[in-house]
This record gives sequence, structure tokens and C-alpha cells, in this order.
Amino acid sequence: MERAFIDWLKSQTEANRHPNLILGIGDDAAIVDLQDGSTVISTDMLADGVHFVVGQTPLKLIGRKALAVNLSDLAAMGARPVCAVVSLMLPKALGIDEAKEILTGVLQLANEYGVAIVGGDTNRWDGPLVINVAITGLVDRVTPPSSTWRLDGAQADDVILVSGDFGHSISEKHLTFTPHVALALFLRDKYYVHAATDITDSLTIDLAAIAKQSEVGMELDAAAIPISKSALEKYKNDPPAALRSALQDGEDFELAVVVDRETAKRIVEDPELPCKMTAVGKMTSKRKFVLVDPNGTRGSLEIKGYEHD
Amino acid sequence: MERAFIDWLKSQTEANRHPNLILGIGDDAAIVDLQDGSTVISTDMLADGVHFVVGQTPLKLIGRKALAVNLSDLAAMGARPVCAVVSLMLPKALGIDEAKEILTGVLQLANEYGVAIVGGDTNRWDGPLVINVAITGLVDRVTPPSSTWRLDGAQADDVILVSGDFGHSISEKHLTFTPHVALALFLRDKYYVHAATDITDSLTIDLAAIAKQSEVGMELDAAAIPISKSALEKYKNDPPAALRSALQDGEDFELAVVVDRETAKRIVEDPELPCKMTAVGKMTSKRKFVLVDPNGTRGSLEIKGYEHD
Repeated sequence: MERAFIDWLKSQTEANRHPNLILGIGDDAAIVDLQDGSTVISTDMLADGVHFVVGQTPLKLIGRKALAVNLSDLAAMGARPVCAVVSLMLPKALGIDEAKEILTGVLQLANEYGVAIVGGDTNRWDGPLVINVAITGLVDRVTPPSSTWRLDGAQADDVILVSGDFGHSISEKHLTFTPHVALALFLRDKYYVHAATDITDSLTIDLAAIAKQSEVGMELDAAAIPISKSALEKYKNDPPAALRSALQDGEDFELAVVVDRETAKRIVEDPELPCKMTAVGKMTSKRKFVLVDPNGTRGSLEIKGYEHD
Repeated sequence: MERAFIDWLKSQTEANRHPNLILGIGDDAAIVDLQDGSTVISTDMLADGVHFVVGQTPLKLIGRKALAVNLSDLAAMGARPVCAVVSLMLPKALGIDEAKEILTGVLQLANEYGVAIVGGDTNRWDGPLVINVAITGLVDRVTPPSSTWRLDGAQADDVILVSGDFGHSISEKHLTFTPHVALALFLRDKYYVHAATDITDSLTIDLAAIAKQSEVGMELDAAAIPISKSALEKYKNDPPAALRSALQDGEDFELAVVVDRETAKRIVEDPELPCKMTAVGKMTSKRKFVLVDPNGTRGSLEIKGYEHD
């Protein structure tokens, strides 16, 4: 949805800020002070024809994805997921067995991640399949700003680290990706992270969101961007297109963290790191978006991606 | 959705019960132990043509209803609402102003009830309007069974008290009803409630759910059922139809609590009660559903209502 709309909603809720609220609309998830802990809450709605295609996408993977995108949001906050609720609008063409198939996809991933499915709402209708998951997790009591993984904490000269690789996720990964909860909890425990997000709209859009909210610029190193096998294969005769796919395709659901130079070095060399992380660029005091070519040429970085229109 | 489906989902989640879970699927909301408090979580999904009609229902009232039904769920748990997230699938025919109108309906009610709107997800698509709200609230740390307003706590000879009146809610009330949060918090503070629910599917269906889960029967007193003005007017030449409407129509969103005889008497006479409550019948050890006619004749009570098919 348009940023302007989210900004409007943010301003409406801030006009009357709730006393329990630590971090509200506009980040990957919200943080709420409930009793003595900080509760992290997020939600995502997926629909047939937009985020999956009934008849082409296995039903179990539709359920899996609906929870996985929420787990990815909590990973982007460094939060431990605890429980989730699932809502469905079921088209009349799908019977109870199909509904169970969808929920089984949710439940299997929930068990894998130790998440309790604690409720939901299921209705039938004449429209297409819609599934919504709302997830609740925990972070240790937040001592600002050291332990809140906000979007707006990046500083000039900070290094951008990303998990995994990027591009052409539509071939399969957008349904089968691993939400980086383990990686996030490992990093949160051991390192001071300035800002974090998960890559959903595209590498450039989501990193630019960190830069913009942190009021800094950003420089990406083209030669360092990890390009997925799937993108390399699809664009094997057109390397610039493969890079573009890594920078501008959506739904990679990798984790990006922004840390100072010294911390970045320690993280990438940490022998206990649950999965490889790559330094892809840095934040800059000059508020521009720059792409450095393999031969060292600096050009303008196009901020583009899949935007649900 | 069919009870069998919910039972299946419940059994799936109980096979692998989460340690933080106090009360899971199958009640009005879930209760989760987060740090030192108990967090109550619920969600409801509403869709065009099922729960409202775009073009006939004012957009603000659609947003209001989406939050109000969730507030009603928390009231049914005796919980204080804290925050909510809102997801939308917006049909392309609705512009940003219409989206804001819907959210304004959510926000106005949120402010009225001291609820923080802390996030959400908004997408456009070719389908009809869908809106989902997931809500989080608090109850004091639960000392089972005294303070959990579950469905399964009713005992034989307990009295059933309800707020407000019933029937033909479709004329307006299903959009403008008052979620009974204040009443619920008042009762929770002062009285020992055995079981509670909000009346969504119908008076008979939702009270029967308490009876079934509590393994008791139920006897309703026809003369005592408060019938709404709207139902009395619509069926002014057919009093039995007005009673049927009160017993079997859905979406009244009144609060029902089940308490012992002595407590019931104290509640209905409490001068500080935020709104009138009426004793409409009692739970019975004999597991039957009985309707007592104004003339004292005992007949079978039909358990019927609006079931989303």
C-alpha cells in the first residue's frame, strides 16, 4: 500500500498515543509493553491472485507462507515468536479437507518454530481465498535504543549485512523460504544491531526504507550482492538482468541488519553464525542512493521492487 | 465455520501444546502467559457481502464493526483491550479516501476504548473488501479457575444473565452496537463469574455452546427474554416471531455471564451496574435444552441462529 496511506495512519494513531506503546505503525512490527515484558505484534494478509494462486500453489504452502511472512517480520525485530491467530475467507469451491490442508501448512511451520496457534476465524464466501495471520512475540524488556531493532537506527558508515541470496524468488522461494528467526535471536543475543528489516518488497526498497527513516544515504556494492541460483539461471545470458532481479524483485524474506564496521567484521567471521551473512554496502552521510559497479564506477541506485498496487 | 473444523484445529494444536498457553482455540479468545501477565488475543475477519455490504453500509461503520466485534470478544473474556492490528484487502474501486474512511471508523472506536492501533497490512486487489482485526488485551494473572471467563465453567443451577436486548440486529445494531468492555471489567472486578460469552451467532447458539462445553443443560424463560424494539416492531402482529428473532437472530453482541444464584441476585440489584442485566434462565444438570413458555409449559428449545455457512 502507498506510503502516504501508512503515514496518514501513523499520524492518526500518534495523535493519541497509547501509554503501553513502545513502537507503533511503520516498522516491521509493533512493540507493546504488556505487564513486565515487551510484546511484539505483526500481521499480514495474503490473497489468491496476489500472493499465491489457488490451483497452482499447493494449499499447504499457502498456509505455510501466511505464517512464514509473519515469522519473518518478528525476525526483523529480533523477537521470539510465541503465538498466532489465523483468519480465513474460504471460497465455496474449497471443502473442509482443503481448509485443513491450508491450516496443516500453518501448523507444521508453527510446530517447527515453537509457535502456538491460539485462535482464528473462518468464514465461507463467494470470493477468492484470503488468509490473515497475526503473530505475537517477545523481546526482552527494551532499554532504548540498544535492543530495539527499529528501521530508524542506522548511522552513516554503518555496514549492511544480509542473509542468503536474492532474485527471482517467484520461482519457488517465496513459498518455501526459511524465516530467519534463529539467525535474528543469535544476533540479538550477541551483537548491537542499529537497524534491521526483512527483505519483502525488494532489496533496494527495504534497505532504502531503513536509510530514509534513519535520515542517511546508502551505497550498495554490485559485486557483493549475492544473486540466487534461480536468477542466475533465468538470466544466464544477461548478467545485468540477474543483478537487477536481485536488487528489484520482491519476496526474498532474507534478513538485513545494519551494524557498525567493527561489529560487521565480527559477525561475518563468527564461526557460530547460524547462516552466512554478506556485507553488501554501507550507509552514508550524503543522503543519496548509490550503486558501485564491479569496476568501481559510482552510479545512481534505482529503488524499485514489487509494490502491491 | 463448522464446529467439526474448529474441533479438528483444536486437536491439532493441543497435540503439541505451547508452554505459554493458558487457554487456546475454542473459546471467545485465547489467553497466553507473556512474561508476568496474561495476554488475551482474538481475531475476526469481515468481508463484503457476508458481514456488511459496500455501497449500503457506510465505510466508517465497516471499520467500526471490524474493531467492535473484537472488543466484544475481549469483553467476553473479562479482558482489558490494549492494542490491535488491522489488515485490509481493498477492491480497486475504493480509493485512498475510502480506505481512510474505513480506518477512521476503526480509529474513532479505538480512541473511545483506549485501544492502540499498532500496525496492519493493506493490499489492493480485484476482489471484494475484506478487513481483519486482531486484538490483544490483558487480564490479571489468572488463578485458575476463579478468574478465567471460559466457556466451560458453568454449573447446574447457575443463572444466565444477559445485557441489553435481542433480535433483528440486522436493521442497524450489528453495525452500531456497544461492545460491553466496561460492563465486563466491572463484573470481573466485583463478582465471581463461572462462564461468559458474547452473543454473536444467536442467543440460543452461544448459550448452548456454554452449556455443551460445561456439560450441563439449559432452561430459558420465554417471558424473561428481552426483545429489541426493532424485533417487536418488525413482528408486531406475530409475537412468537419476535421471540424467535430474539432467540435465533445473530449479531446482537450482548454480554452473557453465568453465575451462581446468589451472585445473580446481587448483580441485577447492584446500583453501580453500568447497564441493565436480565436473568433469562438457568443451567440444569439434565443435559437438555428447554424453553419455558409464559404459561409455564416446558418445551424443547430450538438451538438455531445465523451460521456463516
